[in-house]
Amino acid sequence: MVKTTKRENYAVIGLGQFGGSICQSLVEANQEVMAIDIDEDAVNEFTNIVTRAVIADCQDEDALKDLSIGSFDHVFVAIGSNIQASIMATLLSKELGAKDVICKAENDSHARVLEKIGADQIVQPERDMARRIVFHKLQPNIVNYLILNEKVTLAEVKVDNPDFVGKTLAELALRNKYHVNVIAIVTDGKVNTSPVASDVIDLNDLISVVGNTADVERFNGDANP
Amino acid sequence: MVKTTKRENYAVIGLGQFGGSICQSLVEANQEVMAIDIDEDAVNEFTNIVTRAVIADCQDEDALKDLSIGSFDHVFVAIGSNIQASIMATLLSKELGAKDVICKAENDSHARVLEKIGADQIVQPERDMARRIVFHKLQPNIVNYLILNEKVTLAEVKVDNPDFVGKTLAELALRNKYHVNVIAIVTDGKVNTSPVASDVIDLNDLISVVGNTADVERFNGDANP
Ligand SMILES: Nc1ncnc2c1ncn2[C@@H]1O[C@H](COP(=O)(O)OP(=O)(O)OP(=O)(O)O)[C@@H](O)[C@H]1O
Ligand SMILES: Nc1ncnc2c1ncn2[C@@H]1O[C@H](COP(=O)(O)OP(=O)(O)OP(=O)(O)O)[C@@H](O)[C@H]1O
Ligand SMILES: [Ca+2]
Ligand SMILES: [Ca+2]
Ligand SMILES: [Ca+2]
Ligand SMILES: [Ca+2]
Repeated sequence: MVKTTKRENYAVIGLGQFGGSICQSLVEANQEVMAIDIDEDAVNEFTNIVTRAVIADCQDEDALKDLSIGSFDHVFVAIGSNIQASIMATLLSKELGAKDVICKAENDSHARVLEKIGADQIVQPERDMARRIVFHKLQPNIVNYLILNEKVTLAEVKVDNPDFVGKTLAELALRNKYHVNVIAIVTDGKVNTSPVASDVIDLNDLISVVGNTADVERFNGDANP
Repeated sequence: MVKTTKRENYAVIGLGQFGGSICQSLVEANQEVMAIDIDEDAVNEFTNIVTRAVIADCQDEDALKDLSIGSFDHVFVAIGSNIQASIMATLLSKELGAKDVICKAENDSHARVLEKIGADQIVQPERDMARRIVFHKLQPNIVNYLILNEKVTLAEVKVDNPDFVGKTLAELALRNKYHVNVIAIVTDGKVNTSPVASDVIDLNDLISVVGNTADVERFNGDANP
């Protein structure tokens, strides 16, 4: 699902875990990437990977001007620990005309500053991943989910309840009991995307349902007592 | 979607961005959390947040024994830069009987070592978030997606193509043209989870479809030329 014919120019400032992974993913998707870091070793690691790798201090306005930072379609500011450098890089990139500046924030106050000075998108990778992983520990049977709006969720639920097993969708009557629609059933890795009333549920089947979040939660609770 | 009545014991070793966020999310979900770090300042930040906050070196077997690390339902090893400490903490936690040890890895070789010594789950938060963000830059119209198996994808696609706008689902005939099923349509934040043939598509509607990944990609390409 990363097929694209579009080729754009990206600048990535800061080549730590996050910035380095951004470079890697962009190169795999055949995009133009300029990688920037103040640290020579960090830059050397990317010389043979990206379109262009440059040693520069992102707090130095002239350096960013020379690199035409304002002309890139997207600029990632991927500096965490040095919050001052992250803020300066963001400010200068916006002042120099960069249209889309995506910044990594270390914490919420860092994020607020970045927003104020014009960051177009702010991410907190460690926090966001932490939330995802905690969610999966607490709800191990919700394999996957999409939030369609504040009230409606689509969830892929693994069925553990023996009471559900061996029953047809007609017998389970999920639409009547939970007001959820069954969208797909995965049995042993095989997907059925057109479930019908006579389909039988097996143990550990993954049932994708869509409905009000409270109803989906109720269904998940009963499917996994 | 984080409602749960289950209350379990978690130990979190390393209180950087990732470990700290894990603590925060667990506490919000009303779980028992012991937070451990070698650094006093890091520990002090969590004293009033978690069940118990302890200064300890996770490479010290006796310290981990005293903390009964083997008795926790889940142990997070959230140390990145100090790879040796991360490896030792994982090894000792498994040797002391911890059933579920989730480790943060700095890179792929770190991950391979953790796997070999028995880590139950390995995460690379910065890399995983980087992949997600790059995906969204390259496919801005795929708002959200679930991979049901290696062949089948469920995707929420934002419709930009004027040729699609004002047409009914019957006229668009997505099932005939793309072999995808329409599961839900979001218009101005309102969700329709029972789409029918007479429903009309508006500009910027989000259409959730399920089908073979190649078909979903083809639909997305045409919906957003
Ligand atoms: N002024 C600067 N100009 C350019 N690069 C910088 C500057 N200051 C720091 N960097 C670089 O930013 C990169 C990322 O910084 P650092 O590793 O401290 O952040 P981090 O939050 O740990 O990021 P990650 O978690 O993604 O590894 C480093 O390679 C560092 O050399
Ligand atoms: N031997 C150890 N025992 C206990 N804690 C340790 C040990 N070594 C390091 N730590 C702690 O682990 C925490 C995380 O380490 P560090 O910040 O270097 O990793 P990181 O990869 O930058 O993590 P993040 O990106 O999540 O901030 C720090 O608070 C550090 O004090
Ligand atoms: Ca780093
Ligand atoms: Ca890190
Ligand atoms: Ca850190
Ligand atoms: Ca970090």
